Amino acid sequence: MHAAIPQVLISSLDGAGTFVFALSGAVLAVQKRFDIFGVLFLSWVVGVAGGITRDVLIGAVPPATIANWHDFAITIIGGLVVFFAYPAEQLVSHSVLVLDALGLGLFAVTGAEKAISYGINPVIAAVLGMISGIGGGMTRDVLAGQIPFVLHEDLYAIAALAAGVIVSVGEALGLPPLLPMLFGAAVCILLRVMAIFFGWRAPHARWHGSPDGETDL
Amino acid sequence: MHAAIPQVLISSLDGAGTFVFALSGAVLAVQKRFDIFGVLFLSWVVGVAGGITRDVLIGAVPPATIANWHDFAITIIGGLVVFFAYPAEQLVSHSVLVLDALGLGLFAVTGAEKAISYGINPVIAAVLGMISGIGGGMTRDVLAGQIPFVLHEDLYAIAALAAGVIVSVGEALGLPPLLPMLFGAAVCILLRVMAIFFGWRAPHARWHGSPDGETDL
Amino acid sequence: MHAAIPQVLISSLDGAGTFVFALSGAVLAVQKRFDIFGVLFLSWVVGVAGGITRDVLIGAVPPATIANWHDFAITIIGGLVVFFAYPAEQLVSHSVLVLDALGLGLFAVTGAEKAISYGINPVIAAVLGMISGIGGGMTRDVLAGQIPFVLHEDLYAIAALAAGVIVSVGEALGLPPLLPMLFGAAVCILLRVMAIFFGWRAPHARWHGSPDGETDL
Repeated sequence: MHAAIPQVLISSLDGAGTFVFALSGAVLAVQKRFDIFGVLFLSWVVGVAGGITRDVLIGAVPPATIANWHDFAITIIGGLVVFFAYPAEQLVSHSVLVLDALGLGLFAVTGAEKAISYGINPVIAAVLGMISGIGGGMTRDVLAGQIPFVLHEDLYAIAALAAGVIVSVGEALGLPPLLPMLFGAAVCILLRVMAIFFGWRAPHARWHGSPDGETDL
Repeated sequence: MHAAIPQVLISSLDGAGTFVFALSGAVLAVQKRFDIFGVLFLSWVVGVAGGITRDVLIGAVPPATIANWHDFAITIIGGLVVFFAYPAEQLVSHSVLVLDALGLGLFAVTGAEKAISYGINPVIAAVLGMISGIGGGMTRDVLAGQIPFVLHEDLYAIAALAAGVIVSVGEALGLPPLLPMLFGAAVCILLRVMAIFFGWRAPHARWHGSPDGETDL
Repeated sequence: MHAAIPQVLISSLDGAGTFVFALSGAVLAVQKRFDIFGVLFLSWVVGVAGGITRDVLIGAVPPATIANWHDFAITIIGGLVVFFAYPAEQLVSHSVLVLDALGLGLFAVTGAEKAISYGINPVIAAVLGMISGIGGGMTRDVLAGQIPFVLHEDLYAIAALAAGVIVSVGEALGLPPLLPMLFGAAVCILLRVMAIFFGWRAPHARWHGSPDGETDL
């Protein structure tokens, strides 16, 4: 059942996602006035931390991204592009956010599929798919001294989780993996792009610890 | 020597500890105005991060909490309770802190016992028991942009460490594990409850880098 | 090819590095007014986090520092020295920074060599050597609520990376490991000491997100 996925296609898309994620790490690092090491390190971390977390948790050690140097090279190139691309305000524009959505969807479906192939149950496999997508950005924000934006800003992780759930449901239904993976990535990317352009946010609790119970701002 | 522990009892108590830890993650997330994803994610992280850290370090991969979905379900329920329990100021009250002490004691003794059963030496097994208990809360605080309270506030980790040490000493003495586990959990819970009600704190160094050597406030 | 390294020498130097790293964790913890648990925990984390990260990533579980209690004992002693050494302003002086450079160089070369011996490709092995050296300090800073200094302050990680690269190049050239390890450690220590005394910093990007493109301060 797990054959017939064109591995070259997945690798290419995965590499594209890694590159875009690396850009996001480098942009934040430059904004924080990190030095060139800090910029390249954050590029690498954003590109690989999600996949490393997933691989360590499913027992796939050494993680794929450690066992070869391709992802490393991709993220360093991404970091250098940002470091020398001055002025580079346009790198935080909508076009990069759309590319980031592409990376998110691809990481989420390939992450969930890899967890399933290691025998993880479908519920957690969907969560691990999501973590593959959001783990790099969370680590980036913690290292840059920020609360991970994914925890409180616009719709992001839920899009990745939707992709993971679709892959897991497809597995439970006995479908060949490629179809749910394509569908899941498409749903994630679509949700994320809509969130970017329409400002969609996940709901907040009404209670915030303030005695008069005002709603969030 | 490692038989005869009523596994159903341990699983039930472990589940209760996971639930209470999840509440603490959700309460902080709501206070930080995280969205529903952020609330549920922090609930899950607090409930499972300590055990995952221990399992990765002792080579028990995939970690128990990843290999099944029970803990995940428990933490999501805990997070939803907090998210919709408005107003919920009472969730941070003493009763929850006492439940948290229960979770801490249980996690510490089951964590140390699991480390021993994987062949870890008793000294580090006690430390890993403590980490099973405090790891979730530390990760919660880092993700919420705070210095982990366990490093500077009232007596918390030392109670968990005491539990781990008792389990390790019991192992070194060749006792059946259940007795030191029960005793260790009781000591931890008692220490922690006393700390809550009497404001016990661990000692601080006299030197704080201030030139006049004033004591800490 | 991987024989003939005097293991006793490496263990001794590794222990010295662990001790100095523990001092740096304890000093920051005391400055942050952590309690005695916080001080000792941070000492331990700084001494072992880099090696643990490397070992988890290369599949050497349980990590060496978990499988025995020597490093734990060394770091606790280091933490206690700082906790009770009042006043201890001199601990942050140049002499400690030079000892820290020694630890950095040793951790970087032993880390890279260990990664190579686990079959990791030379590019990533060099990076893992660097992570062995800087991982403890990064974790220290994150737990203390600071942006890791290694990302933005004076030349530090690049010195460790140079050591890792030299070990990897030596491996690629088929040299016996001891020679590149000694040379790599020497280069790292020299670079780091020069950075301390001459204030060397890695270059920063010209763009900082400010519209007028002013250089970094």
